[in-house]
Amino acid sequence: MEIIVIGGVAAGPRAAARLKRLLPNDNITLVNDSEKLSYGACGLPYYASGDINDIAEIFKTSYGLIRDKAYFENIKRLNVLTPYRAERIDCENKVLYLSNLQTGLSLELPYDRLILATGASPIKPNIPGIESERVRTFSKPDDASYFRKLAEVGRLENICIVGAGFIGCELSEAFTSLWGIKSCVVEGEGCVLPRFLDREMGLLVKSEMIRNGVDLFCGTSVDRFEEKEGRLKIFFGDNYTEGDAAIVAVGFKPNIELAESADLEIGITGGIKVDCHLQTSDPLIYAAGDCVENYNLILDKPVLLPLGSIANRHGRLIANNIAGRMDEFSGVVGTLAVKVFDYNVAATGITQKTAEENGLDIGCVWGSFPDKAEYYPEWKYIYLKMVYEKGNYRLLGLQAVGPGDVVKRVDIFSQLLHRRACLDDLFDLEMAYSPPYSSALDPLFVLGCIAKNQEEDLVKAISPEFLAAGSITDGYIIIDVREEGERKGDPIEAEGIEILEIPMTVLVSKLSTLDLKGKKPIVVCHRGVRGYEVARRLKDYGFEQTSFLGGGMSFVGAMKEGIG
Amino acid sequence: MEIIVIGGVAAGPRAAARLKRLLPNDNITLVNDSEKLSYGACGLPYYASGDINDIAEIFKTSYGLIRDKAYFENIKRLNVLTPYRAERIDCENKVLYLSNLQTGLSLELPYDRLILATGASPIKPNIPGIESERVRTFSKPDDASYFRKLAEVGRLENICIVGAGFIGCELSEAFTSLWGIKSCVVEGEGCVLPRFLDREMGLLVKSEMIRNGVDLFCGTSVDRFEEKEGRLKIFFGDNYTEGDAAIVAVGFKPNIELAESADLEIGITGGIKVDCHLQTSDPLIYAAGDCVENYNLILDKPVLLPLGSIANRHGRLIANNIAGRMDEFSGVVGTLAVKVFDYNVAATGITQKTAEENGLDIGCVWGSFPDKAEYYPEWKYIYLKMVYEKGNYRLLGLQAVGPGDVVKRVDIFSQLLHRRACLDDLFDLEMAYSPPYSSALDPLFVLGCIAKNQEEDLVKAISPEFLAAGSITDGYIIIDVREEGERKGDPIEAEGIEILEIPMTVLVSKLSTLDLKGKKPIVVCHRGVRGYEVARRLKDYGFEQTSFLGGGMSFVGAMKEGIG
Repeated sequence: MEIIVIGGVAAGPRAAARLKRLLPNDNITLVNDSEKLSYGACGLPYYASGDINDIAEIFKTSYGLIRDKAYFENIKRLNVLTPYRAERIDCENKVLYLSNLQTGLSLELPYDRLILATGASPIKPNIPGIESERVRTFSKPDDASYFRKLAEVGRLENICIVGAGFIGCELSEAFTSLWGIKSCVVEGEGCVLPRFLDREMGLLVKSEMIRNGVDLFCGTSVDRFEEKEGRLKIFFGDNYTEGDAAIVAVGFKPNIELAESADLEIGITGGIKVDCHLQTSDPLIYAAGDCVENYNLILDKPVLLPLGSIANRHGRLIANNIAGRMDEFSGVVGTLAVKVFDYNVAATGITQKTAEENGLDIGCVWGSFPDKAEYYPEWKYIYLKMVYEKGNYRLLGLQAVGPGDVVKRVDIFSQLLHRRACLDDLFDLEMAYSPPYSSALDPLFVLGCIAKNQEEDLVKAISPEFLAAGSITDGYIIIDVREEGERKGDPIEAEGIEILEIPMTVLVSKLSTLDLKGKKPIVVCHRGVRGYEVARRLKDYGFEQTSFLGGGMSFVGAMKEGIG
Repeated sequence: MEIIVIGGVAAGPRAAARLKRLLPNDNITLVNDSEKLSYGACGLPYYASGDINDIAEIFKTSYGLIRDKAYFENIKRLNVLTPYRAERIDCENKVLYLSNLQTGLSLELPYDRLILATGASPIKPNIPGIESERVRTFSKPDDASYFRKLAEVGRLENICIVGAGFIGCELSEAFTSLWGIKSCVVEGEGCVLPRFLDREMGLLVKSEMIRNGVDLFCGTSVDRFEEKEGRLKIFFGDNYTEGDAAIVAVGFKPNIELAESADLEIGITGGIKVDCHLQTSDPLIYAAGDCVENYNLILDKPVLLPLGSIANRHGRLIANNIAGRMDEFSGVVGTLAVKVFDYNVAATGITQKTAEENGLDIGCVWGSFPDKAEYYPEWKYIYLKMVYEKGNYRLLGLQAVGPGDVVKRVDIFSQLLHRRACLDDLFDLEMAYSPPYSSALDPLFVLGCIAKNQEEDLVKAISPEFLAAGSITDGYIIIDVREEGERKGDPIEAEGIEILEIPMTVLVSKLSTLDLKGKKPIVVCHRGVRGYEVARRLKDYGFEQTSFLGGGMSFVGAMKEGIG
């Protein structure tokens, strides 16, 4: 067989190398439009930042060899064509048309099977001035090198990043932390990481960025760039900022031109449509990685999810299938992580916002937890939000933010989502417990308890943003059950709202004497545990409208800068 | 209803407090034989070590209240009887007989439901001299305080720990790291943590302990203790050691005397037998925590698994069931973690040894991995061993050791075991990928690849111990495919065995010219990746007897001190 793989990063090389292992006697050709093959694209921000010293690192195998043309030819026994652009596919005659980007010469290659791993390209919105040399996107080694070089020679003191998605957040840290470059981030949506986090969770990340000196403007779009005397002005709303350069990081769009040339079916998301075997509408052509759409198992509909980890899994699976198996890609729930300064951020499944947009009837709970046993020294906070479906109690998503170990919980939750688990399954989790790693009852277990109680005993959690944003209206009364010492350093700011300050230890003996006629009590404590406990007791005493502050004041405190 | 809970740590208080929430109008009585209630027993080694400064920490709630009698009475609304010992149950008349341990007075309490959470006690083997004051077990706050005090006043310079299980390993670190106390550990089995780790994985931990100055004697039993002039001599085999004190930490046995007094069924493991609702053979009596046996889902038989995390889950579930639900405890696979110096150690499922003892036909694979992207600065090694069943490819267990993040992988694997997953399920894992947290292809994915290849393409992995122990016999030839620079700092020690040194980059073009007639090649590299790759190619060239060193020389190097 003649098998041609188009695309030299992640899915492409993975598929090609495995195919050669499975079909050592077939001809496997890897085509790429650049000499730069198989790099760890997710490492680029860390090269820009200086965390990674040499760009060669992201091209290396685990045993230190550079994955270049010679590597793929000699070690992986592939035919490698670079720099060649795949121009057109003639499906009927099974011919691929290529052109050499250096010489311009064209080439026709017959194929038996074709793999499209053409990736995705950063979106460049139609903003006046975006063509300036000082405005770039960030997706290739050259992009990282460009900014790294500017930083090294001291010609980058201010940078503006358009878009507070994963790359925007990573880059704001990269420039700030290692070079002390002042970065300003402008995000069109109301908060950072809007596709993966609900607003209150995004506020935690936003606060961490602000604490680290990033200027953040959310809910406003860049109108134009203006270059003048070596400086760049970035205008947004009624405001503007000045910098040496700007990065536009507002998302990616799948590279589908080649697929379109072959009249392959394109999905409603704009990605190439593939079935569960990753075959396109032409069964001889497979597609993998950032150029295809994935099937979201929670929403039961296609989504774009351009991630290196998924691209690699696609590549392996296509190789298996071309070699004669019928493996199925099981679909995705959307599991992601990003480090932003000293905060770890991870999420899986869908947000409250996405769930509501899709018409699901949902419940949410929040929690502030130590990531280890609370008596173990070095523990750090993690702030969690869980979304589930009412009625059937199906788990829908987990968002996790904080200085502590959030990724573990999200990885476990991702598996729960893959098997369509529900709240009760959280009580069956058998996790490795030892004080340096977790609590005897893991936060996921506790979230399950809070959610079940919310549903069955109607002790309602309210979003920590509700209090932080000062959006509490009349009719509410806040019952602050913290001890005096706790209250002192961390007062509740809720203008015009009645606050009853009475520690839980005192309150429990006075429950029957409380006068809360016609009021809706919100019980507030430090982490939400006592709040829940007291709210429950109030319900027993007939105060039906009682709720408690999810995650407590510690959660509110961590989002303070983001609201302010 | 009158509900009595016997046992004041973990399962007991958890069940009692939840019961009161669910049944606020019933009488819930908590009985305990000591005033010390509901402490974090797993934190005791960290108090002994000084990591935790004040013993009160392990008695505190997340909001800083001490969980004492007053707490359970006032906040949790329980009747608390301490220090009372439950002497006998009269099932027929539903009466519990108690005696006050201070006054000696006895008490009879009628009950409607009874919960036994009597825990487990450290085993004190019948060794001459064990009754010495200087020889103690370690399970209660008093034990931790005793050693902490000795250490603080400088009267503990040498300590001998009998048993290298979890507690033995934790304590050897506790005394060494924080107080500089010389500790000597004597373990009857051939290596450390023998119930949770196979020998080669134990050797990694043993090496870490030795590197940190612990004297370790495995495969030998303590014959007697001798106290003379304030010093303790501990004799084992032909050897002895001297110390100021000794801790016997050779395991726990369930406290079943009370259950026996009621003629409740005891399981073959020696724990109280319960059904999936945690009811004993008397349906009015439930049992929870360390005193019961659990059902192992992999072995399909009962086991003892005395863990705080499981005890807490038991407690909650019993409360639900007494309150009218019919929740089922799903059984266990055995998921554990322990920190030993700078190594994280975790395991889930069964070991190779246990699998073989139970007659399972199994395969094993090993791996050395960076816990983050390998180009990300701060990554650390993790060493993994996976055990699976041949034929149906069912996953059986994962052992994970190293300075890197092992617990996450074990927690995820634990879930796979709970749903009886097989090798192919490892390829469907959707995990949160970002360079600071993992590789694009997670180690679990890669282990799946190695295992599938071992089964389907017969490229066999051999245990890293095989090489480390110098047990390679004639007929083998080692092919060292590392680059010269790598080999130099890390030579293979295999006396009398032919070693062919030829880097993969050179070897791949010479495969057809290799002369390996009648020999069994073992391909060796640094982490196992190239070894696997080359072994596979050799097989393509007809060298059927080829294998590769699982985990590579990095694994072998990490177990060096343990082999000695």
